[in-house]
Formats: sequence, structure tokens, C-alpha cells
Amino acid sequence: MNNRINALTEWMKDQGIGMAFLTSPENVFYLSGFLSDPHERLLGIAVFQEAEPFLICPGMEKNEARKAGWEYEIIGYSDTDSPWELVSRAISSRAEAVHKTAIEKEHMNVERYEEMKKLFPAAEFVPAEDKLRQLRLKKDKSELEKIRQACELADFAIQTGVEEIKEGKTEMEILAAIEYALKKKGVREMSFSTMVLTGQNAASPHGTPGETKIKKGDLVLFDLGVVVDGYCSDITRTVACHDIGTEQEKVYQAVLDAQLKAIEAIRPGTPCSKIDQTARSLIAKAGYGEYFPHRLGHGLGISVHEFPSITETNPLLIEEGMVFTVEPGIYIPGLAGVRIEDDIAVTRTGIEVLTKFPKELQIIK
Amino acid sequence: MNNRINALTEWMKDQGIGMAFLTSPENVFYLSGFLSDPHERLLGIAVFQEAEPFLICPGMEKNEARKAGWEYEIIGYSDTDSPWELVSRAISSRAEAVHKTAIEKEHMNVERYEEMKKLFPAAEFVPAEDKLRQLRLKKDKSELEKIRQACELADFAIQTGVEEIKEGKTEMEILAAIEYALKKKGVREMSFSTMVLTGQNAASPHGTPGETKIKKGDLVLFDLGVVVDGYCSDITRTVACHDIGTEQEKVYQAVLDAQLKAIEAIRPGTPCSKIDQTARSLIAKAGYGEYFPHRLGHGLGISVHEFPSITETNPLLIEEGMVFTVEPGIYIPGLAGVRIEDDIAVTRTGIEVLTKFPKELQIIK
Repeated sequence: MNNRINALTEWMKDQGIGMAFLTSPENVFYLSGFLSDPHERLLGIAVFQEAEPFLICPGMEKNEARKAGWEYEIIGYSDTDSPWELVSRAISSRAEAVHKTAIEKEHMNVERYEEMKKLFPAAEFVPAEDKLRQLRLKKDKSELEKIRQACELADFAIQTGVEEIKEGKTEMEILAAIEYALKKKGVREMSFSTMVLTGQNAASPHGTPGETKIKKGDLVLFDLGVVVDGYCSDITRTVACHDIGTEQEKVYQAVLDAQLKAIEAIRPGTPCSKIDQTARSLIAKAGYGEYFPHRLGHGLGISVHEFPSITETNPLLIEEGMVFTVEPGIYIPGLAGVRIEDDIAVTRTGIEVLTKFPKELQIIK
Repeated sequence: MNNRINALTEWMKDQGIGMAFLTSPENVFYLSGFLSDPHERLLGIAVFQEAEPFLICPGMEKNEARKAGWEYEIIGYSDTDSPWELVSRAISSRAEAVHKTAIEKEHMNVERYEEMKKLFPAAEFVPAEDKLRQLRLKKDKSELEKIRQACELADFAIQTGVEEIKEGKTEMEILAAIEYALKKKGVREMSFSTMVLTGQNAASPHGTPGETKIKKGDLVLFDLGVVVDGYCSDITRTVACHDIGTEQEKVYQAVLDAQLKAIEAIRPGTPCSKIDQTARSLIAKAGYGEYFPHRLGHGLGISVHEFPSITETNPLLIEEGMVFTVEPGIYIPGLAGVRIEDDIAVTRTGIEVLTKFPKELQIIK
């Protein structure tokens, strides 16, 4: 974790930031290896230009934080302590005065912000998010390994779901079978609420799984992800229950072509926009442009949606270590909903496709 | 929902608050019936003393919000709109100037707060949480009916788990079976991560379910809850796998006695503290005082932890319509972990115990 703290410190020196106080469970995990959601209780890491950082957490979690690998001071507090008083004391012993301070403005709530302003009335508060996003953008080997495992389990989940497909079964029955199989393998957390959508539900961009039964000729869409040691995967596959119509097949092929070509376009040095445009123009050429209403993909890692955003306009250049989804989709009310999504890691010279479940149209009979 | 808006308006008049802008999914749901988690996108309800309230949400959710029963203006926005500009315009058309404004300081993040301060530089911002907690404290009939259904499913979940208990099965296997059975009944969401803990894991206050196998002589603790139409249940039962030792049985009886007597003590007009003290003193008398480290219970409703807090010191008087848990526990490392939890609704003259799974010690052979 030292490297990560050091990178943050370098940025702080460059920006004249005396202290960074980070309180989101994701960034605390990134900097410390300690994964915890203390809900309304205070969890935070304070980093300084020169002085040693510290972590503050509920007292009963101190041992967990140490075991997770945090090697600097850990301040535990009980429910009767005032954590802000402890924070104030720990900071005073490290910094003479607090001026420019970085906080996560998208995460910290107003109540805590007012506490900090009371403690440090002279401080100017600047956002820390951009720097943390930039640091988290490129995954190291150990992060990649966790994502790889999460992707393997996502493949297994799709396999399970596809095997469960049968005319007359409900979306929720299939969803239940998938998560049951995962839990039996020890999976405790999904990246987000698993989606199993059939027929018309898959064709609406905001369906939620329910009691709808699979009918012959339905396209069934699975969108799911698994968390392994704090890292997420995210996969989508669409398969057919018995034979589907030729127009539906055409839609499927358009999505698949776009997805494959977009993946081919990924390499270090290419702008994110180029990847999105590759898929988008193919879908437009096939005549479905207006039915592809979302960005091509998003980064993933500790969060299931993080940087980079793969949009038509993002000029950011692809670099080794980035991990993101490629997930074109076409949704035509009354006809078909198809999305195909893989997780891609960028290597020094090209890519590694982390999700491996087959993508040719599968017809389940 | 009108009654709820009216109650908020009355409070605003009393406090000289010109506008309340509420942005937590829970309070938006409470005031509008519209249940949605837009993640980083803006969702909010603005309420005024005289002018009509409005709701702002992502455009694609407008229909859902209307269907949910919100009868006032709905402002939808696309990903390319500036929602704050729309908010600003909608407010300007309703209020001449914005002075005292209530926001949820524990929910609103600093970024949004700074947006609001930019839009309304003369405004003073006060917290809205206490009032919303007070409003949500007493459940109406329709809320109670949803909680009742969630409790029925919680009973079913415990029944399923108890039937799955067998020497050699892991915690995760049993957990998987419970959630599988619930999903097949159409349950989409649990109130929190389901706990199945056996033996030593149940005896530590912060166990998480894993690959530990149930052994003969273990106490197995289930803690789980189900969400029905946005309302939560929360139940805990502890059962034995084959015969347990007499000291373990003594612990179980101490928890059960304390739980039953605490429930008996609940009636309108009694302070919350009295309920906690009833259980706590019985557990202390049985010699286990130091092993009961948490409050007796917490309110539940839209959130699984809400007001009232049933602690040793809370002077709040019990009133008709409150719904809360009663969950004493004793955790002795190396010996036993036992907790028994029911959800209680306060009626005009007494109580209704909403969770009904039996509480006498069950020995599963």
C-alpha cells in the first residue's frame, strides 16, 4: 500500500495540500487494504506531506484493519468517544496548521463537513476524487488477479443461468438458481442486483426481474457481477429460448459484431472515444442507431462503475492496466433486447478478455 | 402522501423554513411513494410553505414516479441537462427568495451542498433529519401491513434455515438455501446481508458467514430480514444442532427470559429506556451482564435501523404506531452466542408481535 500513499503524497506536495482526509470505504480500502462499511460511523485515513498517515475506525475493527495490512497508526474509538476529537488530536500532533485539505466532496456529507470546518476554520477544502480516480485507473497485478477471479465466477454464473433456462420458468426462479450456485461456491456479494430479463422486459432499458415467465422465442438477458476480495466483475449475455425470429437474430448479430470490433480496437494509445465510436457506427450502419442509448462501457475495479468512462467523446488514451467493460446493446420495444458485455484488461501491447463465456447466439431448446 | 407533505409544511411554518429539499431515497420514498436509487444522479423533493412541491428525477424514471402516486410536478432531466439549473428555475417560480432551507445534512454530500450554496447564497441551511425521523416514527396502517408481510417472509426464511441444519453443512450452504427459497417466492431484496453463524462464529459479535461447518453441539444463529414494497423486517433466532451443554442452555434461557419480559414491558406511555433496562437487568442477574454489549433494539420501517433507539438511557415514550426490534444477546467467546429478536408493533393498548417463529430452544437432530 506504501506506493499508493506515496503517489498521493507526491500529488499533495505538487498541489500544496497539507492533508488529505479520505472517508469513502472504497478509497480507504484502496489505500489500506482494509475493506469495511461502518455505515454511519466514522472511517477515515489522513495522509500528510511528511508526517505519518493514520487510520481511524470503530474500535472493534482495529484488529481487522491491522490484519488487512495497514502498517501505520490505527485510532479506534468506542460509541461513547468523540471520533472528531480524536481526529483533531491526531492531526494536531502531525501538522502545525491545516490549510489546504483534500476531502471526497462527492462522499463526505454536510454534517461531517461542518465538523471539519469547526475543527479547522482556516482550512480551504479541495476535492480529492479526481486524484483517487486517476490512481485507481491503472490496476496492478494483485488487483488484476482478483478481478480475474471475479470474472471466472461471473462466467460460471452465466453458465448456471443458461442451463436453467426453460419455457415457463420465471425470471426470479432463474435468478435464484444462479445466486444459489454462487453462494454454494462461497460468494458473499454480487457487484449489483442480478438481472434476469426475458422477452419484453429485456427490451426495456429499465426492467427489473420478476414473475414473468420465459416463453418460446424469447431472448433472455443476464447481467450480473461477482465481488472477490473487494473487486468486481460485470458480464452480460443474451441467449434465445427456442428459435427466434430473423429480425431478432439480426439484432443479435449487430450487437455481437459491434462488440467484437470494439474489442479489436482497444490498444494502448487509442482514445476511449474511438472504442465507443467503433461500436456505435456499426450499430448505426445496421440501422439500429437510435436503439443504443447508453455509453459503450465503464471502468471497473473496487467499484463496479469507475473510471474510465467509454463514451463517444472521452479523449482519454487507453493505457496498460486499465480494466473496463465493452457492452453495446440494442433495445427495441416489442421486438428484442440484446446486450453483450465483457470485461477487458489492457496489457502492454494489447488486451486480455477476462470474461470468457461464449458469445455466438445460443439457442436453448 | 398529502398528509406527510402537510405535516412537513406545518413544521416548516413553525420553524420559519421557506423550503425543504430532501434527497435521500428513503425520505423521497416516504413523501412520494416513489422508491428509487438513482446512485450519483440527482433525486429530490422540494417542499414549500405555500407553493406546490415538486420532484426532480432522471427523465426515464418520470413515469415510475407518477405511477407511484406523486401528484405534483415532476421534473425529469436527461444526462446532458443540468439538473441544478432546472431545480433553480423551479424554485424561483415558487419562492421569491430562499432563506432558511432544510436539507438532510447526514445525506447530502459536499459537492451538492456547494451547488446549493451557489444557487442560494443568502440561504441558511438547517438539518431536516430530526423532523423526518419524527414523522416516520409512527407507522400508518399501510406501512404496518407491508412490515407485517416482510415479517411473515422472515419467519418463512428462519423455518427454511432451521430445516437445512445438519452436521457438516457450511454456513454459506444454509444461507444459500434460505435466499434461494425466498427468491423463489419473489423476494428481491434482503434488509441487510443475511447472517448464518455457527459455534464460535456466533459467539463473536462481528462474525461473517463463511465455510465453517456445523458441528454437533453448536448453537446456530440466524439474523436476517426481508424487504417488501420498501419496508424491512429483521429477525434473529438461535437453535441447537444436537444436544448442547447445560451452560449453553443456561445462556439460551437467560436471553429468552430477558426477551419475553422486555416484550411484556412494552406499552404506550412507557419510556424506551425501561424496555432496555428490563432485559438488561435480567441478563445481569443471570450473571451475563458483561456479555450483552449492544442496545436492546432499534426502530424499523423504510430503513432497517431507524428511530426509536431502544437503549438504557432513551427517555422517549412508547407510542401507538411505533415498530421496533427487541433483540437481547449474550456472546461468550469459547462458549456460546445467542440472540433472539422479534419485531414489535405498538398498538393503542398494547403490542403486536409481528415475527412469530417459535422461540423455545429447538434442538435439531
